[in-house]
Formats: sequence, structure tokens, C-alpha cells
Amino acid sequence: MSLIFRQLFESESSTYTYILGDALTGEGIIVDPVIETLERDLQITAELGLKIKYVVDTHVHADHVTSSGAIKNRTGAEIVLGKSTGLKTADHLLDDGEELSFGSFKIRTLLTPGHTNGCTSFVVKNMVFTGDTLLIRGCGRTDFQEGSRETLFKSVREKLFSLPDETLVYPGHDYKGRTCSSIGEEKKWNPRLKMSNSFEVFKSIMDGLNLAHPKKIDVAVPANLKHGL
Amino acid sequence: MSLIFRQLFESESSTYTYILGDALTGEGIIVDPVIETLERDLQITAELGLKIKYVVDTHVHADHVTSSGAIKNRTGAEIVLGKSTGLKTADHLLDDGEELSFGSFKIRTLLTPGHTNGCTSFVVKNMVFTGDTLLIRGCGRTDFQEGSRETLFKSVREKLFSLPDETLVYPGHDYKGRTCSSIGEEKKWNPRLKMSNSFEVFKSIMDGLNLAHPKKIDVAVPANLKHGL
Repeated sequence: MSLIFRQLFESESSTYTYILGDALTGEGIIVDPVIETLERDLQITAELGLKIKYVVDTHVHADHVTSSGAIKNRTGAEIVLGKSTGLKTADHLLDDGEELSFGSFKIRTLLTPGHTNGCTSFVVKNMVFTGDTLLIRGCGRTDFQEGSRETLFKSVREKLFSLPDETLVYPGHDYKGRTCSSIGEEKKWNPRLKMSNSFEVFKSIMDGLNLAHPKKIDVAVPANLKHGL
Repeated sequence: MSLIFRQLFESESSTYTYILGDALTGEGIIVDPVIETLERDLQITAELGLKIKYVVDTHVHADHVTSSGAIKNRTGAEIVLGKSTGLKTADHLLDDGEELSFGSFKIRTLLTPGHTNGCTSFVVKNMVFTGDTLLIRGCGRTDFQEGSRETLFKSVREKLFSLPDETLVYPGHDYKGRTCSSIGEEKKWNPRLKMSNSFEVFKSIMDGLNLAHPKKIDVAVPANLKHGL
């Protein structure tokens, strides 16, 4: 077992960043890095003996600024996003099912739109990085950035919930101190998306959320369209 | 692989709580639970299909109140601490090397005094739960509760650093959003305790910390001597 895996938390936006790497070859990737914790993340990556090959964003975030552009500048890493973001300045725009390698490991793409149209999940071994599509006992909001209740419901039910139940779910955020879940758990216990809920139930839950306008959206989205630079 | 593992965070005291269980038998343990997150932890444990057999405290905490007594009352779990705490109201006071089973897994005791005299680490498979003895790139303070620089240095160097380098270190706290480390990493990168530091270097670092008196100590310690009840 030579997969290095580290989960990191940025407390202001409650964002999870993930570092994965092959301990044998030293090739690594970083998922959803945040500009405020850039130095921490680069230091840990170096101390783990990893060179970042790909910096991956699960979507164009509205609640924090990515450090993907800064990491590219500092390390030469290539920027990866899902195809549906349409962000032509990325080095790789991955389509559904497409894979990239780091060392002897692979990251596999699942296009999972709904929170935003460009939302993408990534599978590595028995782990799935779901961004804001599927959260622990929750999901991303669907009321801005081309969000769609119908599309998110379909992405979770048809794409994510078709992964094996044992698959570990590593989300883009958590606000209650939880770090991971599993597909089996979310199918059973996610109050919005559990298998016993119809789309009508999901829709009425989402319609009743009454969420405030995200504080950082007017800064974060334009910045993230330029990879945080 | 039927080991269930969940790491949880309590943000006020930056404490990590751990739930481990055997997916086949449903027997589980919880390490360092916090009174503020009692309901969350019981809910997750139940949703994971686990019955808590043991509630384990790595030491008598000074910065938060344990929920071990409450969990015992609610679930019938048995309270476990290290022998050197001298807490005779615990159900198990484990000595160095002593083991307890949950399902097909074992928790093994390492007495690691220094932060407090009763500090204990626990090994499960390739993971060690170090409480406040060894933190990620740091360690617990040694200036109260029978703390001792000499004893902590010896516990880390002779006990924890003799575990395999690949052993994952799960600490009692982190204040920078890091969730885990490894013994190999800490031997190389821990600024206080890395192998290249002599005891004299460690001693001078600890003497220069100038830490404030812990806010909660006068409430937490008396409460924790009664398992938070």
C-alpha cells in the first residue's frame, strides 16, 4: 500500500483539501486547495516527498478562492477541472470516465452537475471526492451558478450512488466536524437524498432552505474563473 | 477489510474524536469524545450500526470536558483509561502492552506520560491515537498536571518512535486543519521532537513556549476526574 493520503481543513470556509500521492514515485495531486492555506499545503506536500503533478478543482467555487493557479506557478503542476466548467485556460478539462495517472494510481472523472453545471467528482481507489455535489448528510445548494435540483438529484442517484456502498465519500465541506462518510451511509441516512426519498421530497426540501446569498460569491467566482490568480 | 473508522472534530477546543468499529460484529469504540458533540457522536455511531463497547480517554483533559460518563450512561459502554491516571472509577485501567478487543480488532495500550502523568496512546492496526503526547509537528505542553519535559521526550522517542514509520498518527488536537501524520514524518519533521534534536534542544523549545494558563482547566480537570459527569 503505497498511496499517501492526507485530508486538510480550511476553517474560514470549512473547506476540505486533499493531498494524494504515490509514495514510491513521489507523484502527487491536490484536490480543492484554498488560497489562505497555500503555504501549509505546499509545506506538507514537500515534507511528504511529493511533487504535485495535477491540481484539481471539483468546480468553480463560490465560497472560497482556489490556489490552483498559484500552485501551478510555484510547482509546475497542471490544472485539472471537469469539462463542463468550460474553463479553457485549464490544462486538462476531463470528460466523464476520463482518467489521469499519478504514479501507479489513477483519478477517474464523474461529471456530477447540479450544484453548478461544471461540478465534477473524482474517484481514486475506494474513495470519491464529491466536491459540493454530495456532502455528508447533505448536498450543495442549487439556487445559483446554473444550479438545478433535477440535475443534482440525477447526478447523485445515477452516478454517485452507483458506486459500491463501501466507497468512502470525501466532500468539499463539512460544517459539523465530520471528515468522511460512505456511499452506503448516504444512501441510507442522507436526509435529502436517501434512497427512500422521491424527487418530489428532495425538491421540497431544497425549496425550503431559505439560504442567504453567499458572502464571498462576488469575489470568489470571478477569481476562480482565473484559477485564483 | 471490515474496520470502520471515522475521525470527528470539535471546533471550540480543536479536539479530535475517533470512532472505530468492526462492520461485521457491530462492536465499536470511541476515543476522546467531547461533551459538546455528544449527540452528533451518538447519532453517527448508531447510523454506522455500531454499539459502543469501550469509551476511551487518552488522559484527563484540561481543555475540554469528556463525554465518557454520559456515553456510559446512555449506551452501557465501559470507560477505559491508562493505569497511571489512577482513576479507580474507570471500568478498565490499562497497563503498558495491555489489549482490549472490539469485534475482530484489538486496541493496544502504550503508556506515554509527559503531558500528564496518566497520558496513554492506543494502537489499532496501523494507526496510533496519541492524545496530547505527540501532535502533528508538535506535542502537548508539559508545564502543568504533573507534566515533565524529560518524561514526554522519553515517551515519544522510546515508545511512539519505535512504531513502524508507516504508522498513521491520529492526535488529540490540531490547530491548523491537519488531520493525521505518520511516525516517519514526525521523526523527520517535528520541530520539537525530530530525531536530529537532542533533549537539550527540546528542553529549550519547551521552556520558551510562554503559554497562557488554559482557559478551561479549572472546570475541565475536576469534571474529567468524574468522567465528565
